[in-house]
Amino acid sequence: MQEHEKGFFTEENSVEVVAGRNRNAKDARLKAIMEVVTRKLHEAVKEIEPTQEEWMEAILFLTRTGQMCNEWRQEFILLSDTLGVSMLVDAINNRKPSGASESTVLGPFHVQDAPELPMGANICLDQKGEDMVISGRISDTAGRPIEGAVLDVWQANDEGFYDVQQLGIQPEFNLRGVFRTGADGRYWFRAVKPKYYPIPHDGPVGQMLNHLGRHPYRPAHLHFILKADGFETLITHIFDPHDPYIESDAVFGVKQSLLADFRLVDDAARATGYEFEGSFWEVEYDFVLAGKGEAA
Amino acid sequence: MQEHEKGFFTEENSVEVVAGRNRNAKDARLKAIMEVVTRKLHEAVKEIEPTQEEWMEAILFLTRTGQMCNEWRQEFILLSDTLGVSMLVDAINNRKPSGASESTVLGPFHVQDAPELPMGANICLDQKGEDMVISGRISDTAGRPIEGAVLDVWQANDEGFYDVQQLGIQPEFNLRGVFRTGADGRYWFRAVKPKYYPIPHDGPVGQMLNHLGRHPYRPAHLHFILKADGFETLITHIFDPHDPYIESDAVFGVKQSLLADFRLVDDAARATGYEFEGSFWEVEYDFVLAGKGEAA
Repeated sequence: MQEHEKGFFTEENSVEVVAGRNRNAKDARLKAIMEVVTRKLHEAVKEIEPTQEEWMEAILFLTRTGQMCNEWRQEFILLSDTLGVSMLVDAINNRKPSGASESTVLGPFHVQDAPELPMGANICLDQKGEDMVISGRISDTAGRPIEGAVLDVWQANDEGFYDVQQLGIQPEFNLRGVFRTGADGRYWFRAVKPKYYPIPHDGPVGQMLNHLGRHPYRPAHLHFILKADGFETLITHIFDPHDPYIESDAVFGVKQSLLADFRLVDDAARATGYEFEGSFWEVEYDFVLAGKGEAA
Repeated sequence: MQEHEKGFFTEENSVEVVAGRNRNAKDARLKAIMEVVTRKLHEAVKEIEPTQEEWMEAILFLTRTGQMCNEWRQEFILLSDTLGVSMLVDAINNRKPSGASESTVLGPFHVQDAPELPMGANICLDQKGEDMVISGRISDTAGRPIEGAVLDVWQANDEGFYDVQQLGIQPEFNLRGVFRTGADGRYWFRAVKPKYYPIPHDGPVGQMLNHLGRHPYRPAHLHFILKADGFETLITHIFDPHDPYIESDAVFGVKQSLLADFRLVDDAARATGYEFEGSFWEVEYDFVLAGKGEAA
């Protein structure tokens, strides 16, 4: 019998020895996951060949990351986001049929119970920022409008902050709203142009980004959750393609199909119609929802 | 230009997009490490295809692991130990020339400044446990004895606890000692037979072991650090091959070459010579140190 067959560790058979120890795991899925985790972890260590000091640095980085977490801060999610893992998990769980709108990460700033508003409402409650009107159509993959689709939107303000980050400064539910489509599947509402903002970067993940020569910014975007009976829920963003960080989102949330056209409009008559003063931004973006069970 | 070339995320090019973001890293070694970490992490996620709930479970497990750490407890080292990573890093950093003694993990219970003792001293200061005498020879890979080799030994007692785990119960420096060889390279000292013990298992790592159907025990062993001028320092254990956990060490520290022969001796005359009463355990184990720079 060879060493590793007795459960003794060898560099060559490290994966077999360690993963083999899980033969009595209580859960087949956990056992399968740990086999992959062990194998990929050992492959990484064998390729990197860390010194003992580098190994200890990694241990202490993970420790600091855990200890940065509290009720309001999830540093391990930030780590997952900045290593592209969150987007990868999102992609795997949201493969869409051809023509359907693509998903991106939810982010930490969605709140339940935002008010349902009539089409055309202005979700900017404090008149701060550059006026914007957004409209479009929600349809199925055959192009038919979806009636009764619920669009839940939230965004940062013109300084890059969500209402929940500025309690007492921004009004409650500022730049949030829920809209429901009629028979034409169309939606529209008024808002202000969002601004780029940094992810929290005063912790271990911020230090990592700094060492890697990376900035912590997310390009300006609006968040959406779209729901409709008989359709897969879509969690996504639309982005301002002219944002300075559009090609370097710190959390890799940008996809080509999520770039919207942000047009500056200088038309006094239209501005008055929207109760805007002076020029305003116009965005048109259509969403296509995948039917439940529609093949990816 | 394709999506991923603009820095936009795609499932197919996830590694290229994420690792590519580190092009301005301040440190070439860190950049290389993060390329491997990103690639292996994404490979693991693509193979596992975790649900969003499984991903969140992983996030929360890592968070709890970090939050379990304090001045006295390093749960991420326990995680590294129980996934075989610590042994792998040890193996990579301690590849030995043929014939040299093998290394294993240091463990958390070594203390500086244990007393230097004359050969033959009894490191058991509280007369608890089964008497044991240990002897052997320290030589180079050509078989020549090493004079002036320093052997630092520490072990758990017959209940599986180190002195530092039982302050006020065990005497200070109980079952620890430092010995220095003469011209013959030989060493010997008296002690008690160690017992298996669990790694700390009241935290996330203990829960993981439980779900994986694994126990938290380490088979009985003695720890050694051997140092000599002109030789590589050796950090290792010797193990009791009859221990019930010898083939399932929770931290994978056992290697075939580290099994010593633990013999029960029933010889009144020899017992009297060692100031033992009744039968005692005898262990002989020779160490071979690699010369500094001697090829692995």
